[in-house]
Amino acid sequence: MSTSIAAHPDRLLPADPGTRAIARNLLKQVEDLPIVSPHGHVDARIIADNTPFPDPTELLISPDHYVTRLLHANGVNLSDLNVGKSNGADPREAWRIFCRNWHLYDGTASGYWLRSEFVNVFGIDDSKINEAHADEIYDQLQTIVEQPNFRPRELFEKFKLEVMATTDDPLDDLSAHEQIAADNSFSGRVLPTFRPDAYVKFHGAGFADKAQKLIDTAGDGLSGYEGYIRAMENGRKYFIDRGAVSADHGTLNANTLKLDPAEATLLFEKGLRGEATVDEANAFEAHMTYQFARMSVEDGLVMTIHPGVYRNHSPETFDEFGADTGHDIPFAMEYTRGLQPLLGDFGNREDFHFVLFTIDETVYSREIAPLAGFYPSVYVGAPWWFIDEPDAMFRWRSAITGTAGFSRSSGFIDDTRAFCSIPARHDASRRTEAAFLAKYVAEHRISEDRATEIIVDIIDAAPRRVFKL
Amino acid sequence: MSTSIAAHPDRLLPADPGTRAIARNLLKQVEDLPIVSPHGHVDARIIADNTPFPDPTELLISPDHYVTRLLHANGVNLSDLNVGKSNGADPREAWRIFCRNWHLYDGTASGYWLRSEFVNVFGIDDSKINEAHADEIYDQLQTIVEQPNFRPRELFEKFKLEVMATTDDPLDDLSAHEQIAADNSFSGRVLPTFRPDAYVKFHGAGFADKAQKLIDTAGDGLSGYEGYIRAMENGRKYFIDRGAVSADHGTLNANTLKLDPAEATLLFEKGLRGEATVDEANAFEAHMTYQFARMSVEDGLVMTIHPGVYRNHSPETFDEFGADTGHDIPFAMEYTRGLQPLLGDFGNREDFHFVLFTIDETVYSREIAPLAGFYPSVYVGAPWWFIDEPDAMFRWRSAITGTAGFSRSSGFIDDTRAFCSIPARHDASRRTEAAFLAKYVAEHRISEDRATEIIVDIIDAAPRRVFKL
Amino acid sequence: MSTSIAAHPDRLLPADPGTRAIARNLLKQVEDLPIVSPHGHVDARIIADNTPFPDPTELLISPDHYVTRLLHANGVNLSDLNVGKSNGADPREAWRIFCRNWHLYDGTASGYWLRSEFVNVFGIDDSKINEAHADEIYDQLQTIVEQPNFRPRELFEKFKLEVMATTDDPLDDLSAHEQIAADNSFSGRVLPTFRPDAYVKFHGAGFADKAQKLIDTAGDGLSGYEGYIRAMENGRKYFIDRGAVSADHGTLNANTLKLDPAEATLLFEKGLRGEATVDEANAFEAHMTYQFARMSVEDGLVMTIHPGVYRNHSPETFDEFGADTGHDIPFAMEYTRGLQPLLGDFGNREDFHFVLFTIDETVYSREIAPLAGFYPSVYVGAPWWFIDEPDAMFRWRSAITGTAGFSRSSGFIDDTRAFCSIPARHDASRRTEAAFLAKYVAEHRISEDRATEIIVDIIDAAPRRVFKL
Repeated sequence: MSTSIAAHPDRLLPADPGTRAIARNLLKQVEDLPIVSPHGHVDARIIADNTPFPDPTELLISPDHYVTRLLHANGVNLSDLNVGKSNGADPREAWRIFCRNWHLYDGTASGYWLRSEFVNVFGIDDSKINEAHADEIYDQLQTIVEQPNFRPRELFEKFKLEVMATTDDPLDDLSAHEQIAADNSFSGRVLPTFRPDAYVKFHGAGFADKAQKLIDTAGDGLSGYEGYIRAMENGRKYFIDRGAVSADHGTLNANTLKLDPAEATLLFEKGLRGEATVDEANAFEAHMTYQFARMSVEDGLVMTIHPGVYRNHSPETFDEFGADTGHDIPFAMEYTRGLQPLLGDFGNREDFHFVLFTIDETVYSREIAPLAGFYPSVYVGAPWWFIDEPDAMFRWRSAITGTAGFSRSSGFIDDTRAFCSIPARHDASRRTEAAFLAKYVAEHRISEDRATEIIVDIIDAAPRRVFKL
Repeated sequence: MSTSIAAHPDRLLPADPGTRAIARNLLKQVEDLPIVSPHGHVDARIIADNTPFPDPTELLISPDHYVTRLLHANGVNLSDLNVGKSNGADPREAWRIFCRNWHLYDGTASGYWLRSEFVNVFGIDDSKINEAHADEIYDQLQTIVEQPNFRPRELFEKFKLEVMATTDDPLDDLSAHEQIAADNSFSGRVLPTFRPDAYVKFHGAGFADKAQKLIDTAGDGLSGYEGYIRAMENGRKYFIDRGAVSADHGTLNANTLKLDPAEATLLFEKGLRGEATVDEANAFEAHMTYQFARMSVEDGLVMTIHPGVYRNHSPETFDEFGADTGHDIPFAMEYTRGLQPLLGDFGNREDFHFVLFTIDETVYSREIAPLAGFYPSVYVGAPWWFIDEPDAMFRWRSAITGTAGFSRSSGFIDDTRAFCSIPARHDASRRTEAAFLAKYVAEHRISEDRATEIIVDIIDAAPRRVFKL
Repeated sequence: MSTSIAAHPDRLLPADPGTRAIARNLLKQVEDLPIVSPHGHVDARIIADNTPFPDPTELLISPDHYVTRLLHANGVNLSDLNVGKSNGADPREAWRIFCRNWHLYDGTASGYWLRSEFVNVFGIDDSKINEAHADEIYDQLQTIVEQPNFRPRELFEKFKLEVMATTDDPLDDLSAHEQIAADNSFSGRVLPTFRPDAYVKFHGAGFADKAQKLIDTAGDGLSGYEGYIRAMENGRKYFIDRGAVSADHGTLNANTLKLDPAEATLLFEKGLRGEATVDEANAFEAHMTYQFARMSVEDGLVMTIHPGVYRNHSPETFDEFGADTGHDIPFAMEYTRGLQPLLGDFGNREDFHFVLFTIDETVYSREIAPLAGFYPSVYVGAPWWFIDEPDAMFRWRSAITGTAGFSRSSGFIDDTRAFCSIPARHDASRRTEAAFLAKYVAEHRISEDRATEIIVDIIDAAPRRVFKL
């Protein structure tokens, strides 16, 4: 008899017994469905080559900045965890640090996923995660990840992953994706996603070189802004030909702007020369958000945006460890006015799918639900990043449902680099959706029959429909 | 034995059995009370003439942009629903489209009201609302609305409507209201509301003509800004003489500004000539919000504001179908600094009632509750428009009660054009208030005796007290 | 058998019986723990001199603007309550007004505290608080507060107060604190807190005089900006030597700015001369917030900020009654970009503790939890001021836990002038934390064993750890 909360069949279900009984029934409809993962950050190469996972620290700690940031907040030096550019720490010692601090993760989304991975993926007794058992668990995990049935492709199948999208640089040749598609021994779909941010932000590292390389590579011999736009269009086509269904944009904010080609050319040239002001850089980015929507209308790629994050907030951490090391911090967003130029022109276009993600929860009831409740192109992105946890998911549904119902949400996305956490993340989403719907049923706001249909739709049909899978 | 959730006696009540029992008792105190509706958009003419309702599509779909927007979001062309200026669609075919898409409304406020209307007003079996039964229900509804006991006045009585306010143009002669008041055969109160927005916004359609006509009609022979202010004062008096208790203002934002007459005159003249900038137009509107407060202090009309909506967000939809067709989208609001000039001068004035509505939920706990917890003039407006649904109503009470208690809220307003939805809307509010109070009783935060008094106060006494009825 | 909700053992615990049982067990761990109060506004002098409390009105009404503001909102003149500068009212008559309006406090935080004080501190039957019993209760309270065992030091012990911080002017000589520390007959710790706001805001009343006096008093003979900075450093040292553990800053917003000494000197001189613009005043304040962080890094004082309040919103009330009379109103905040200069330089410094309070709830999940989940210096301040009530505390935990867990919060602070309300405030916090954790246990998100450890940590260990007690 397991006493682990990670294995409890009622985990994340509501406490009220009547509501819990309804939630259990709803969960049954979806808990064994395959996983559709239309947005994430796993490297396609590990699937293509079926690369064995390295040591436990490299598997679960060093690259996962959701895990390392809480250790850092509690006084651990990131270099002791081999975060980012650092690599001098003993993995086993890093693992001990993690186990010593395991209590920090209680109540967090990362803690829920990690515990679920330990128990449900690796068969580790989670009551033993502490300093005393650190070495024992390290050895146990090391043995497990060396087994052939714990390699990426085997886990892909074990996890019932049906489709998994990666996130890729426009100049990536997508050879890993091609290799997977050509391999008849593997039936999972691994799709690339076009993510051009680094080629759009004037003040990002190496912008001019990147943009010029893009033009040279895919610009059909055109130069300057004209070649740049052509190269973006060609790059997207290259991705589409290799299975891509969406383009993803980590924009500064949700502003959009329709510049005429002469204005855009002027800004672009300034950006290339490193002479653009902050306002000019922002204007060009807003213009490109508009242009990417235009391209999506033309080529059918689903467009996703997730603005509103101050990247690399701690300069000394960035200098020592690099980007994606835990200090990207959200700020307040505005979608209604910012998106108006784009939606005014493209919002009602047939087959245009525009998914709005955010980390500013205030936007859901105020802006995104009303937009998605009118424009056929707009979908409410699932809670994402810092708000990818049960309470926030519950608040999200509560914020949007009265206005937009259950038909306008994107379906869950796991957005993760941590391959082994994918089942736990989708499981948490399914349980939370069951909990939410059960409350509505218990309060006689929807019938149990309809809730049974709705949960299958939002878990399984919605991501396929919204991401054109 | 009905299986419809719309007829379930416990609908919207909390799932926990103990809390539900308390909520049932509280609901009993108010469920049969008459309806006081101090703000809405029903046309007084239909009451004056007791106009029979037209076909089901015209009754329930075409004019209700809360209903049509969700169909539009799911790919239906608004012209197939006879929305706004369009009128070429076959009503029966539009009805079929609606029935085919009925599932979209699950979980929405509109869905709750519609289902309640079907079951509780029209006696329709809501389990039959689907494409297969579309024609049958259409015929059934058509028969019902042709019956003499389903005309507006008969429903007004059946709904136990005691007072219903309409929303009216300053130049409306209010003949419908006069006709109703003079008719001894009808005892319901139908009150006009002064809504001058179109005469204040320089860049609204036809501003100059409207403002000039107002001056010519009611300006006592004065001209320019002086005549304009006089005409507003006279227009309000004309409304008051015909029963009006409030003036309603759909302002751009919550800014207020006290300009001296010379500055105001300068702006007004620019506005009339079509030469005002956006900033000047906004300044004049902020000035007029201040002026309307000054007038309310003098003439006693309750002042209500509901800022923060981007009107006609989709230009192509606006061009084809006109205003109020589902794409007015909220944005973030600021009340504390914006209202300071107005509240600094009038906030403590005796008998000034100033009701602050919003669609930006973040403002409730942060700004409106603290303002209403100090200024005797300020009342917290009930959740309104997109947030007029049970979850948002619950969040609203939760956001304001710790700071402002139960004595500072406006009472529920239905704000509807859909006459037949009025009982369902007030019923949803009463049930949600019972649910909220029951939670506080169950948690021993207020006594059950006090909750029993409070629910009667907030449902019945508050709207009468706040709107001076 | 008591029927008072204030004495009910399950008050504020969740209604669901299973969850409530868990909450009761958790509450048992902490309900009898001593009170640690690291931030508040009680005058140290009343402890030093063990001053008897005056009449009931002076004890519970006149100085407590949380109590008087709701009366004012409901039409009571503040002069009838002896608020602020007014003192002409008969205390007994003021008490009658309060009792007559007692129902206004239902559901509010103030009402919960007051009721709890009546029942649990004074032994008053709260069912009698009404106009009819006003005089009887007044006399009863008067008798009680005249008893020797109801003087401040006796209550300090009875309340199990272990540490209580006051808030003090930089030029306060802290003689009351010295007197308490030197008195071996009293074992409670009463610590001063350095609060320099009035010496930082150019446009505050008497800025130039205050700043000059500070320089003259503690500037080591230096003059101008150099003397000012030195005086701040010396003032902090003086406070530290007398037990201070923190410096508190009621900043306009969360902006921080690193000016070079020449720029800062220029602004300071303008500020002294009364010639600074609003922007310059704000820039100097942002610079000083940065400087105070630098000082905290050097001298170890915990730094707390609570920006975002429009002080003295009603000028006529301010003119008649003075500051702190109920009309300080919050507005929206931004922390991510504003704090970046400060956190970029000091966020990772060892032993720097920086507690972020707010009254804008939107900031918790969006900004503060992500910041506290990365920077070792940053702690999430407990809900404070208007949001110091059970629902808001629950929302606060829900907003931050998924991202920051349970290790990054400040511990509860009561922030009160009302000495007798301290136990009720901490009790409400303990009960709400038990309710929150019980939900997580009931939903199998944390184990009951861990919840038992966590509640002791967040109630007892966290304030000691974060405030270096």
